[in-house]
Amino acid sequence: MPASVTNLLDSLPSSLTAELFETLIKTPELRIERILSDGQVTPEGQWYDQAEDEWILLLQGAAHIQYADGREVALTVGDSLLLPARCQHRVSWTTEDEITVWLAVFYPPSQ
Amino acid sequence: MPASVTNLLDSLPSSLTAELFETLIKTPELRIERILSDGQVTPEGQWYDQAEDEWILLLQGAAHIQYADGREVALTVGDSLLLPARCQHRVSWTTEDEITVWLAVFYPPSQ
Repeated sequence: MPASVTNLLDSLPSSLTAELFETLIKTPELRIERILSDGQVTPEGQWYDQAEDEWILLLQGAAHIQYADGREVALTVGDSLLLPARCQHRVSWTTEDEITVWLAVFYPPSQ
Repeated sequence: MPASVTNLLDSLPSSLTAELFETLIKTPELRIERILSDGQVTPEGQWYDQAEDEWILLLQGAAHIQYADGREVALTVGDSLLLPARCQHRVSWTTEDEITVWLAVFYPPSQ
């Protein structure tokens, strides 16, 4: 039987004391997560350094991603970005105006 | 080097004579597509009957998915839905008011 519809933008919390990670789909090859941020950032000097490729899509809100070389990219609604495995990065800013909703797809690196 | 940002909602065509399929990510285990519809539907009596699981997310617009048993689900912005492998389905309606933007993730069935 087909699964039921889940809306990723409905019924969001009004505020969060920490980022919220929710797994939507998980198979041996794939993980799809919804991540909610409310002004939270990755602690200064701390980096994500992942074994998997991560493809992200911003569904609501606004955020900045910083790379270890200092470069920073600003993300707004509809923006997608590939974070290749081992590409060190951190979330350096998320808006406090509303909940930021990320879609993140993790999968084995292609190379 | 990290890839650049791609916005999935910017620079949409104002109208389409056919659905537009665009591959965003492709690995041996995974395919992420953006699909644009402008009132198009799957021809009556024709069904998608896929070997892969497909997880969809509506980013803009509105659409209906119909199953072979006659049931129909209405999708609005933010709605996600798992279409398991071999679950026959068709797109039975998309709005003509604006371009409908789908995100579709295809991957090997987990069972």
